[in-house]
Amino acid sequence: MKKAIFSTEISILRSTMQRLLRRRAHSNITKILRNTHQADIALIMRSLNQFDQKKIFALCPTSVHKARLLEELDESLIENVLKNDSVKNISKIFGYLDTNDQATIIGMFPSNKQEEILTAIEHGDKEDVEEIMSYPDDSAGSIMTKETFTLNQNTTVKKSIEKLQSFPENDKIFYLYVLDNKEKLVGVVSLRTLVTSKNSKKLREIMIKDIQAATTSTDQEEVAKKVAQYNYLALPVVNRKNRFLGIVTIDDVVDIIREEASEDFLQMAGVGKDREILLKSPLENAKSRAPWILASLIGGICAAAIISYFNSLLEQIIVLAAFIPVIIGIGGNVGTQSSTIVVRGLATGRVDVGNTFPLILKELIVGSLLGLVYGSIIGFAADYITSTDMSNLGLVIGLSIFCSMAIATAVGASVPIILKKFDFDPAISTGPFVTTAIDIIGVALYFFIASIILIN
Amino acid sequence: MKKAIFSTEISILRSTMQRLLRRRAHSNITKILRNTHQADIALIMRSLNQFDQKKIFALCPTSVHKARLLEELDESLIENVLKNDSVKNISKIFGYLDTNDQATIIGMFPSNKQEEILTAIEHGDKEDVEEIMSYPDDSAGSIMTKETFTLNQNTTVKKSIEKLQSFPENDKIFYLYVLDNKEKLVGVVSLRTLVTSKNSKKLREIMIKDIQAATTSTDQEEVAKKVAQYNYLALPVVNRKNRFLGIVTIDDVVDIIREEASEDFLQMAGVGKDREILLKSPLENAKSRAPWILASLIGGICAAAIISYFNSLLEQIIVLAAFIPVIIGIGGNVGTQSSTIVVRGLATGRVDVGNTFPLILKELIVGSLLGLVYGSIIGFAADYITSTDMSNLGLVIGLSIFCSMAIATAVGASVPIILKKFDFDPAISTGPFVTTAIDIIGVALYFFIASIILIN
Repeated sequence: MKKAIFSTEISILRSTMQRLLRRRAHSNITKILRNTHQADIALIMRSLNQFDQKKIFALCPTSVHKARLLEELDESLIENVLKNDSVKNISKIFGYLDTNDQATIIGMFPSNKQEEILTAIEHGDKEDVEEIMSYPDDSAGSIMTKETFTLNQNTTVKKSIEKLQSFPENDKIFYLYVLDNKEKLVGVVSLRTLVTSKNSKKLREIMIKDIQAATTSTDQEEVAKKVAQYNYLALPVVNRKNRFLGIVTIDDVVDIIREEASEDFLQMAGVGKDREILLKSPLENAKSRAPWILASLIGGICAAAIISYFNSLLEQIIVLAAFIPVIIGIGGNVGTQSSTIVVRGLATGRVDVGNTFPLILKELIVGSLLGLVYGSIIGFAADYITSTDMSNLGLVIGLSIFCSMAIATAVGASVPIILKKFDFDPAISTGPFVTTAIDIIGVALYFFIASIILIN
Repeated sequence: MKKAIFSTEISILRSTMQRLLRRRAHSNITKILRNTHQADIALIMRSLNQFDQKKIFALCPTSVHKARLLEELDESLIENVLKNDSVKNISKIFGYLDTNDQATIIGMFPSNKQEEILTAIEHGDKEDVEEIMSYPDDSAGSIMTKETFTLNQNTTVKKSIEKLQSFPENDKIFYLYVLDNKEKLVGVVSLRTLVTSKNSKKLREIMIKDIQAATTSTDQEEVAKKVAQYNYLALPVVNRKNRFLGIVTIDDVVDIIREEASEDFLQMAGVGKDREILLKSPLENAKSRAPWILASLIGGICAAAIISYFNSLLEQIIVLAAFIPVIIGIGGNVGTQSSTIVVRGLATGRVDVGNTFPLILKELIVGSLLGLVYGSIIGFAADYITSTDMSNLGLVIGLSIFCSMAIATAVGASVPIILKKFDFDPAISTGPFVTTAIDIIGVALYFFIASIILIN
């Protein structure tokens, strides 16, 4: 473990690096790059411009340093620093990366350059890299590491420990995976069990046979859930015939969980699912956000049409306009609460998809309770706010708030469940969809109730 | 590893269990409890009523099974199943729990019962449990595990392996922590290094000396970030004098990351931060959600007052009312996008807190770009929607949309940053605060622009 730096120290590192870049103090920069954890360098590179990012990468003292830095960098930064590098240099750095990282990075290049790099990297790695690249994005196959410790079930403990000693240094070796003669996964032995067993025993005598595995096509989110739920350190990946292919390790699962949470956050707000959106230009930002704003636009136009339809009512009772914001605002907020609870519950497995009626009913009850309280408050306060003394205005406002909140919770809870049932990601723009739907329903309800109660 | 069950299989387990509970087929239930992973049992218990939850817990075949189940259960379920259990039974189960879980569970009881249980548990455990309970909630001290493998730096490799063999079975042993004579942490040795080193060497000769540690008061979110950023498997916890106290393991970090993401989701939507809200009654739900709805209420009343102020303008140009929803809706959506990007960026360390001006400026640019596009569209469409031909109405609407969106992005990006600067959690109800602020600003701007352009 290399000395690592945190929070406030990161800011110091950042400003030091910026000062040295301005002064072109290249040898000092190289010295820092040699002595700092690459995760910290990756962090500060986010706030540098593309030119300086390239310079820092070029100043890394060795190919090993470059490889370690690539492991930590965001994808859009990797693209930038490697863009104009020669195939020869890239393949040299790749010698220090595990095959999974090689596959990820090669995937960023245009296909003609992919071929060139694949030809240049080590022969043993090439096959593995091509295999990993052949699996769909975000599948267990695409995120697994091939650098694992496997032995035949008839190997003795003594021989296994010797093999372990000659195995290249790797932090990620938690278990020894045991295979039969056909390379099928038949068991697993922890290093601790290995060390504490008699030398003469064979692996098949000490291994645990009852093991969970993912297949190459298992979704990475599913893999993460398995690892988290059962507290595994690694999950083996097999093909359909149970042939052992690799493992997904818990440190990758940590990244997946953070990434999936980020994607859900962004998707719920209707910002697309690009985790690196903060690194993108304003124009790219606007482009990925524009489609979801369209929902608001269409909803707003519908609401405008509805209000225009009730024009003559509004002309008679102009004060009705004053309560449009509170009715749609309060409905939107309570609806967002409901959809957030449900989206998160679906993501963490807390919502039982087979039995969602009680959940929607419960949300409807919560909405009604809150609607009763807040509808009464605003209903009674309505006359004071507008300084009118129209009879029944309070009743209209209060009843509209009540209905709007009750419906908002039911809609808010239902939208993600419906999306899930049709196999869409429940997080996709739940925010804009729900608030827009509630805008329209709220306005329509309000004027409908007003027209019934106030016009007699 | 016990055979575990997934997704669709969980539903089958759930319905089987419900059927057996109805039929009171207790011996069959016990059989299932004996052969199923406790994480799966914990999952299906969420959808049972309190009476059945207690029954299942009581039917667990042994105290070991009960302990394994407690490790997986949600807090509110633990409270329920243990509520009326005797101190003797509880302390028997506690014998199979690590001290950290014991401390968490004891913390749920009223203080008089806490004393009783502490007196009843094993003497060695008692001290550790009391120590863990003494640290603040969500600190490294409160989540660390004391069951670690430590040896003095002068121990030989041979002796260390012997010690490891006599150490109780534990999945979580990744490293051997090396202490000096004063119990200070001086190094770390991986099991692999231990196995592959010469028997006669001493630990201080093979250990890595340059190690990261948390102190007991380090926030758990900070611990999770460290572990995730540097791909650690465990982080040692020391006191101020560098005395070794315990470790936080990566499988706990996985839970922390999921929990913190859930809390952020719920807080952003203004639902409080209770991750178990889905398990609570409608009344409890309404109570924890009501305060944040108050923001909408106050905002709505302000908006109503503003609109009432422009009453005479509205009487002349009644069609203005029709566009209130689109102006606040579109502003609210784009503002929520901005605040979500910033809140998530702060949580994952992607936003540089020391240098937020460029970020807010960028959001302002994004808002202006989107405002230009959507303001133009709605501006030109305004006449058609309302079938009026008032000159300049489109200009008022378009300009208001533009201003509202530009301000909304700036407000949306600023609110979480300001919260963070004043040491509040940036996620706290960013949703309700931002949308409410935008409702008020949007309405005020709209009528102000209208009064300037349309009344001459």
